[in-house]
Amino acid sequence: MHDVAAAAGVSQATVSLVLNSAPGSRFSADTRQRVWDAVEELGYRTNAHAKVLREGVSGMIGFIGDTVATSPFAGAIIEGAQERAWEEGLLLLTINTGGDKKLEAASLDTMLSYKVAGVVYAAMYNRYLEVPKALAGVPSVVLNAQDKDGKLPSVAPDEVRGGYTATRRLIEAGHTQIGMINIETLESGLPAAVGRFEGYRQAVAEAGIEVDPSFIRFGEGGETHGYAYGMELLGASRRPTAIFCANDRTAWGVYQAAAELQISIPGDVSIIGFDNQSTLAPFLRPGLTTLELPFAAMGRQAVDFLLQGAQPDGQVKLMDCPLIERSSVSHPKEKP
Amino acid sequence: MHDVAAAAGVSQATVSLVLNSAPGSRFSADTRQRVWDAVEELGYRTNAHAKVLREGVSGMIGFIGDTVATSPFAGAIIEGAQERAWEEGLLLLTINTGGDKKLEAASLDTMLSYKVAGVVYAAMYNRYLEVPKALAGVPSVVLNAQDKDGKLPSVAPDEVRGGYTATRRLIEAGHTQIGMINIETLESGLPAAVGRFEGYRQAVAEAGIEVDPSFIRFGEGGETHGYAYGMELLGASRRPTAIFCANDRTAWGVYQAAAELQISIPGDVSIIGFDNQSTLAPFLRPGLTTLELPFAAMGRQAVDFLLQGAQPDGQVKLMDCPLIERSSVSHPKEKP
Repeated sequence: MHDVAAAAGVSQATVSLVLNSAPGSRFSADTRQRVWDAVEELGYRTNAHAKVLREGVSGMIGFIGDTVATSPFAGAIIEGAQERAWEEGLLLLTINTGGDKKLEAASLDTMLSYKVAGVVYAAMYNRYLEVPKALAGVPSVVLNAQDKDGKLPSVAPDEVRGGYTATRRLIEAGHTQIGMINIETLESGLPAAVGRFEGYRQAVAEAGIEVDPSFIRFGEGGETHGYAYGMELLGASRRPTAIFCANDRTAWGVYQAAAELQISIPGDVSIIGFDNQSTLAPFLRPGLTTLELPFAAMGRQAVDFLLQGAQPDGQVKLMDCPLIERSSVSHPKEKP
Repeated sequence: MHDVAAAAGVSQATVSLVLNSAPGSRFSADTRQRVWDAVEELGYRTNAHAKVLREGVSGMIGFIGDTVATSPFAGAIIEGAQERAWEEGLLLLTINTGGDKKLEAASLDTMLSYKVAGVVYAAMYNRYLEVPKALAGVPSVVLNAQDKDGKLPSVAPDEVRGGYTATRRLIEAGHTQIGMINIETLESGLPAAVGRFEGYRQAVAEAGIEVDPSFIRFGEGGETHGYAYGMELLGASRRPTAIFCANDRTAWGVYQAAAELQISIPGDVSIIGFDNQSTLAPFLRPGLTTLELPFAAMGRQAVDFLLQGAQPDGQVKLMDCPLIERSSVSHPKEKP
């Protein structure tokens, strides 16, 4: 402050007052300018706080994730958000709460106190969640989830359309005996499980296909259930010619079951997954045809909402999950 | 400021001066206390910047990662760092630069301007790197990497000891025909490749085992090279009875080659990996015995260094990679 005062040719008290004053204080525009010039000349660094006090906003967007930053795949959501923010010269400040509500409250308090331009509140997996009340104090968007109260704008994957696209891909290849291994029960209410199943149901109904109920299983989204239900479905005397696995890990389990039963993919059975996990789907043999969770695009969209002001209008933006073609789907061997 | 002045019973100019004054300014302790009490009563939130200006430090640690937050597995490093920081009531503010040097500079500038208590500078994979000069201005630690100039304290995995432990595990099971598929050439200088190989070399030398040079391969760390070199090593007339794969993805490729060649793991060949990738190693059949990269412990250690003041003393803390036993290692079938 001493240096700033000397450089600006004013008293330290003036510097103090200018740094903390709202526009229209009793100093002339010229004096204020000289103080800020001196501040900037002597290094913006030590005065970022003063600058925010003066201007009321910082060049930052807050990103609060439950375990997004540390979950193996949803991290791309941060990349997308950050890329979009940085295009506008904004930094994305990420805090990972691990679901700890006290840490979350402290994080939000810190972000709001530092005058972030907005907050992205992100979940590791798509669900309906209760948002912290403090988000009402700043433009906010719920990402990879939906606000239970329907107030904050949300960005989430279009699970129904994804399930429809996956199933439609199998139908167009000529399959009518199409099984599904879901990643949770419908009673769970998990949007991915409910939505992907609904898409499957719509696609088969539209095609006039009546699905054998024994072709449908509800696992827990891991490789273990994929393997177990894969053994059941593929080991049965009457088996589906195609299986929609509601995530890639389930599909991996079905691959292992098929290998054990010496059933060829896609020769004997076509498999389609969901998620397009980057370390898994391309490396299965054959490569897994699947739907991609558009994490990066979702991250960008959330920041776009903030840049547009993000009113609490309950808007829900459902993002398309593109089909990623690899080699696990072909025509059925014979008409059933 | 008007409200604070009214609540504290002082003038607005006094509030301004107190908010910006160093201790020992011309106001009495009582006046200063009244101003700060009023500030806190009226909401800490809008005054975090003033508080930092007054106290000179914020309750935050900065974490700058290249792609740590978005790489599938290194994210646990953030969890560890954050957990340790939060134990001290500090928030971990993460910025993910994606390797963009301009973004990195802006991020560092922001963090320093916001008076973070220290900065963790983290890399997605272990290497020697040039650290930004700005880190000299604040306690800093290099994480999952080492400062090329040997100045900043660093926390990195003990790759040599890990390679030694992995190889020693195979030797103790009775193997003498031990191959290795590395994840890079030694010329790459990549600590994981060079160190894990050095550990392998030490273990076999110590046991008096002379390794057939044809049992050693240098891949690129992916499943594709694991598969290709697995086919070569396991398809040869004279083959190793055990293979140390220098990462889990390489091991997965070898598993696929073994399945294709109808070679049983661990019956015909024992496999040990490295990394303990959470979505891969436990789900291979049989489960992969491997060394764990201690990401969470490394993250904690980095924050510990900061809490201790983190002098630029060039200290390098090498963290042990624990052996994770599963089912891919057994005794060799017969003495060679």
